[in-house]
Amino acid sequence: MQLNNMLKLKAAWLSADAPESAIVLSSRVRLARNLERHAFPGKARAKDLSRVIGEIFEGTRKNRIFGKAAFLRLEDLDDLDRSLLVERHLISKDLTAEPANRGVVVGEKEKMSLMINEEDHLRMQSLEAGLSLSAAWEALRRLDDELGQRLNFAYDPDWGFLTACPTNLGTGLRASCLLHLPALVWTGSLNRVLESLSRMRVIVRGLYGEGTRVLGDLFQLSNATCLGSTEEDFIKHLTDVVQTLVVREKEERQKLCAGGERLKLEDSMYRSVGILSHCRIITFEEAMHHLSYIRLGIALGWAMPMGLPQLNDIFLTAQPAHIQMAAQKELAARERDQFRAEKIRGQIRA
Amino acid sequence: MQLNNMLKLKAAWLSADAPESAIVLSSRVRLARNLERHAFPGKARAKDLSRVIGEIFEGTRKNRIFGKAAFLRLEDLDDLDRSLLVERHLISKDLTAEPANRGVVVGEKEKMSLMINEEDHLRMQSLEAGLSLSAAWEALRRLDDELGQRLNFAYDPDWGFLTACPTNLGTGLRASCLLHLPALVWTGSLNRVLESLSRMRVIVRGLYGEGTRVLGDLFQLSNATCLGSTEEDFIKHLTDVVQTLVVREKEERQKLCAGGERLKLEDSMYRSVGILSHCRIITFEEAMHHLSYIRLGIALGWAMPMGLPQLNDIFLTAQPAHIQMAAQKELAARERDQFRAEKIRGQIRA
Repeated sequence: MQLNNMLKLKAAWLSADAPESAIVLSSRVRLARNLERHAFPGKARAKDLSRVIGEIFEGTRKNRIFGKAAFLRLEDLDDLDRSLLVERHLISKDLTAEPANRGVVVGEKEKMSLMINEEDHLRMQSLEAGLSLSAAWEALRRLDDELGQRLNFAYDPDWGFLTACPTNLGTGLRASCLLHLPALVWTGSLNRVLESLSRMRVIVRGLYGEGTRVLGDLFQLSNATCLGSTEEDFIKHLTDVVQTLVVREKEERQKLCAGGERLKLEDSMYRSVGILSHCRIITFEEAMHHLSYIRLGIALGWAMPMGLPQLNDIFLTAQPAHIQMAAQKELAARERDQFRAEKIRGQIRA
Repeated sequence: MQLNNMLKLKAAWLSADAPESAIVLSSRVRLARNLERHAFPGKARAKDLSRVIGEIFEGTRKNRIFGKAAFLRLEDLDDLDRSLLVERHLISKDLTAEPANRGVVVGEKEKMSLMINEEDHLRMQSLEAGLSLSAAWEALRRLDDELGQRLNFAYDPDWGFLTACPTNLGTGLRASCLLHLPALVWTGSLNRVLESLSRMRVIVRGLYGEGTRVLGDLFQLSNATCLGSTEEDFIKHLTDVVQTLVVREKEERQKLCAGGERLKLEDSMYRSVGILSHCRIITFEEAMHHLSYIRLGIALGWAMPMGLPQLNDIFLTAQPAHIQMAAQKELAARERDQFRAEKIRGQIRA
């Protein structure tokens, strides 16, 4: 439990003071890179992997963009630390599967991070609050330029940056936004909207990315391909798609408020307030369900016992590893659910 | 809507200051009587029925036990008034089915009432708070003696008082208690307990008597027969049975508080508080479910946002006719559910 100081930090990418932050929680851009003359992680031996970590740590230490960074080897951390990094969206769940010779560099305020020896040698990401893909890309581009001067990235003039999986070949860029779409879910319009997205080369996933479930009406949208356009075009395309969705969600919200469903919506919303402020046991899944309603209530300007920053904080710290970190020990599922209920009640009263 | 003044009255039989009132809400004793030389209501013509009302009204007016009484003909009341009387347990639902030539006399504080031309010409009842069958019987016995001097009750030296249904023949007495048994329900022990009750010639019913559902873990227990014992023996027997059940319920409550289920129980209880204090729509059934948990919480001495008198008041006034009376108009089911939610929130805040 080395990383418990992280608990005191508000994740900057969850700031409520950002473009479209009532609907778009965060924007993320990542680049996949590999080092020349090293086998991809899936094929590499332990010694090679360890050397890759060393080279990337070394190449990163001198950069001027990251600010004061933390250099972590996953094998030096315990399970809870690793889960905390996943819950803060700094590393993927996949990286924790085999911690030996995997690394992560976390930049100041957690806005940028590097994953080392996941599917590719290097995955660098930039996270920003709200609908801010351009800003995230701009920061990441500068980091990529600087690291590219110190590390020899595997690159082919015809294909672009080489990656372990062909879906990342080319720019190696994946841009994504985390969207809160409760009104589209409530009215059942979401499925039709999602169908149209697949035609626009956009992929929809759950809260923790690939293969994860949808929780709290939160959807992660990302570009489906990395090839055939410039980075800027990918960023612009996804921004346009997200903006369209934001408009659709706003329309549904207005309809809900004006229509016969309003009372039912109010009822669900205030029941969620009542349950979160009174429960004694609660799973993360159920908490997310109620937080979703409250987030919508806040966005609609209805009287809620908290604002968006406070809600974002509850959302982040209600996750299982955060709960155990706050309790300062590993807890069984039921104890976690109890501690979570107590913690959320305290956060609402605060 | 003549009876809206009743809304301002607390029903005396729901006082929280009574023996075993944490578990036994109320005790009721009723006597079935018929007038000599008049056909039973099921066989009587309208003119006969009207005459019976006249005779009973007349015979009752002069009594000294009732105090200031209200003499009501059901045909003079509207549906809402009649339903209000049912919800206050002053008349049976059956009496409202055909209001012509049916009557009711309501005594002071609603502790005694007479139903006229239900199954029998006269059903007189005495209602007391808590486990107070003897007190209820004592009051009723005096009323019966006094009315018996003015009205000629049909009586046979061998069979006792004659009644329309043979199950009431003899004493015409039915004693019942309304019990709150949430712990026995929670632990699943109730079914075994109820089986043993049937062997003790005791019948179990729902909140509104014969043929009604169990709501809010409330059970009505009454003697199965009226024949073969004295009135005092029936009262004593039922009191003993209820006392046994009270002990069993208390044991289950203690076990729940000491055992591994306590946290789950606390969670359900406080969620009920959260929902009742925040909901915007609620059915009577759901309200009863939550009130049951809160009643248990109060009995266990846990921190609840109300005491037993306030809870009893909510329980009484959340019923559909009470809600519409308070709203001063007839409401559709959904409007009722909305008004009920608003009213309960106000009562909790008060």
